[in-house]
Amino acid sequence: MVVPESFQLDQEILLDAGAQLHRLKMYPYFDVAHYLLMIIEVRDDLGSAASIFSRKHPLSCWLSSMLMCFADAFLANFLLGEPVIAPFKRHDDIILATIIWYLVFYAPFDGIYKIAKITPVKCVLAVMKEVKRAYKVSHGVSHAAKLYPNSYIVQVLVGTAKGAGSGIVRTLEQLVRGVWLPTHNELLRPSFATKACVVAASVLALEKSGTYLTAPHDLVYLVIVGFFVYFKLSAVILHVTDPFAPIENLFCAIFMGGIWDAVSRALAASRDRRAAGAHSNENGSSISTPEKKDQ
Amino acid sequence: MVVPESFQLDQEILLDAGAQLHRLKMYPYFDVAHYLLMIIEVRDDLGSAASIFSRKHPLSCWLSSMLMCFADAFLANFLLGEPVIAPFKRHDDIILATIIWYLVFYAPFDGIYKIAKITPVKCVLAVMKEVKRAYKVSHGVSHAAKLYPNSYIVQVLVGTAKGAGSGIVRTLEQLVRGVWLPTHNELLRPSFATKACVVAASVLALEKSGTYLTAPHDLVYLVIVGFFVYFKLSAVILHVTDPFAPIENLFCAIFMGGIWDAVSRALAASRDRRAAGAHSNENGSSISTPEKKDQ
Amino acid sequence: MVVPESFQLDQEILLDAGAQLHRLKMYPYFDVAHYLLMIIEVRDDLGSAASIFSRKHPLSCWLSSMLMCFADAFLANFLLGEPVIAPFKRHDDIILATIIWYLVFYAPFDGIYKIAKITPVKCVLAVMKEVKRAYKVSHGVSHAAKLYPNSYIVQVLVGTAKGAGSGIVRTLEQLVRGVWLPTHNELLRPSFATKACVVAASVLALEKSGTYLTAPHDLVYLVIVGFFVYFKLSAVILHVTDPFAPIENLFCAIFMGGIWDAVSRALAASRDRRAAGAHSNENGSSISTPEKKDQ
Repeated sequence: MVVPESFQLDQEILLDAGAQLHRLKMYPYFDVAHYLLMIIEVRDDLGSAASIFSRKHPLSCWLSSMLMCFADAFLANFLLGEPVIAPFKRHDDIILATIIWYLVFYAPFDGIYKIAKITPVKCVLAVMKEVKRAYKVSHGVSHAAKLYPNSYIVQVLVGTAKGAGSGIVRTLEQLVRGVWLPTHNELLRPSFATKACVVAASVLALEKSGTYLTAPHDLVYLVIVGFFVYFKLSAVILHVTDPFAPIENLFCAIFMGGIWDAVSRALAASRDRRAAGAHSNENGSSISTPEKKDQ
Repeated sequence: MVVPESFQLDQEILLDAGAQLHRLKMYPYFDVAHYLLMIIEVRDDLGSAASIFSRKHPLSCWLSSMLMCFADAFLANFLLGEPVIAPFKRHDDIILATIIWYLVFYAPFDGIYKIAKITPVKCVLAVMKEVKRAYKVSHGVSHAAKLYPNSYIVQVLVGTAKGAGSGIVRTLEQLVRGVWLPTHNELLRPSFATKACVVAASVLALEKSGTYLTAPHDLVYLVIVGFFVYFKLSAVILHVTDPFAPIENLFCAIFMGGIWDAVSRALAASRDRRAAGAHSNENGSSISTPEKKDQ
Repeated sequence: MVVPESFQLDQEILLDAGAQLHRLKMYPYFDVAHYLLMIIEVRDDLGSAASIFSRKHPLSCWLSSMLMCFADAFLANFLLGEPVIAPFKRHDDIILATIIWYLVFYAPFDGIYKIAKITPVKCVLAVMKEVKRAYKVSHGVSHAAKLYPNSYIVQVLVGTAKGAGSGIVRTLEQLVRGVWLPTHNELLRPSFATKACVVAASVLALEKSGTYLTAPHDLVYLVIVGFFVYFKLSAVILHVTDPFAPIENLFCAIFMGGIWDAVSRALAASRDRRAAGAHSNENGSSISTPEKKDQ
């Protein structure tokens, strides 16, 4: 099958773009975007008490910010039996994250926090964070594949933990701040980010196994980055929070007992109708019998 | 000492039975029984909201069921510093457990759940689960013995974690479902299963050390399986929940401060009596003195 | 520079004292002091219900006491990815700690508990416990330095975890007793012990790196033991709970946003004054205008 030249050209461009994306250094720029948005999440979660809290409990404020910045490494290391403290080995990362923590909570007149909240700035930061997320999912899957070559479930779980670890670690992070909200946990109501990471990790695991997906890795990586960035921008700009929801509801309606529930309800309804019908016949006949007596 | 022939015969039969029990493959039948009863426990813990919960939160429902099915491996791996995610390596187990989870929560008209609740079926499943429990305790003790040959406390703790891990992991499993009941934890009120696993693991650790217990391993294993099955059936059929309770209460009354409490109470009582006696003497003399005045 | 002989003599004496302190065997005497004070902390935390609790829930009472006695090893092993169960390997320690647990909770007429509460006894035990704490911080830093030679943050965190682990593990320990107090955690309000361990671990890490602190190790160790003992005795005798508080408040006032908060308040106040001034001018002119009308 002769592939038209223009199409070949596009594929090379895409492959080239994917390769460059893959070689992108996360430190320091993409890391800064990730740390900034994570620490702002901690601050937003504190609500109006953020300023007072950061003055009264600087250690707890710092530790919960570090927990969120490196949640992916903490969670993945815990699952793989590797040292949970490992992220603190890299002084550059810790110092960079600490500087950003300091600026978000203690900068003069909340300058950094307010700048980061401006929509264009927020979009740029969000895009950079999604590139970092794809990087982490990819590295999580390949690290797990090295340890467990044929265990796709482990690779998907580790990839998801690396990509969306902060959502899962949030319950523990809130505990460090003395807040305990067991009913608000990521596993109970998974956010779009977690679901997107499950999809991305599954695609990468399939691609790595080479059996079901034979597209070149750089192309797959490019598609995943595009997928993350596209849906994050639609969330930031158009406030589309969970594009998966319609598909999910359909899937659950069909496969997660929806059909049998409908059948049971229908049967119950027909039983009720029959019972009601039988009941009205009895009443009808009992009413008609007294008339006979009256005659 | 000449052992009567019939006794020798019995011992050979028992040894043979123990050896066969030991070589029994848990997968798939005994695993099915274990998964079924564990997932039904999750469902029962959800109470009447089980159906709604499984439709609204399928991810949380699946994960808490997996947590209970593989609680022994998660807990033992965590204690031994091995990868907590290891149970997800074996696709066969995860797929089998996921199929049973699907049938328990989403089968048409709750068929599987209702069948499993029928007493004869429940007894068969319970017996198979206890065989699996003995298998896990035995493997826990021997795995720990390989890592820590002379540490009997570690072997007993790991054997107990393997045999009764789900009771201890339940607090975490409920948290995954957004339920937090800190006052209902297995360590505060250990169930009979946990106590039985402590006894079984201790016997197996002693037998493995070869110093205090020199009976053949297969015989010991057979006795342990019998012990588990006997008490589980008496719990299912006769509702005898904790056969250890009488012995425990006696032990606690004697060794856990019971005697000194009784002595303290007796002393306090005699002190009160003496104080009351002295008080009444004072009153008696003060009453008698006024009479003198009257004369 | 010629160092006066007397000063040389002193330094040798100090070095000698430091070396001897370093070679001190913790087992059994210093361990007994540590276990005694830790288990008494569990008992005090139970409050008046301690006696009833220890009779009704002996397993939970024992396990939470063991958690506090070996909190440093549990926490450090968890952070370093080493087996959490390792402390149970050493039968001597577990048996010694169990004996002390038994005496604290079940001794006749609460003898041991009452004796340990007498101030002179409490001082001796406290001094021995602080020697043990310095020993643990030092071993934590050197163990982490072996695993992560150039990671000072990891060394300080592991040293602190070893020295003040029980404060951090207390939230989990209370959960084992069915008590859940998320707002009372060590990271939210770090006690003096935790802060002192951070300082000690930092000094030891710097000393081990050899770049910033070149004093001999034994001398540094002696100073750290003196530092711990001095502040613990001032806490026990003079009830000086947190000597760091003044320095901390000053540091936070300057560096943790204090200055910018003051500047913002000043600006806000001046803005208010100006607004109030403008407002009163308007009122003043509006009041004066009507007079013109009156004329």
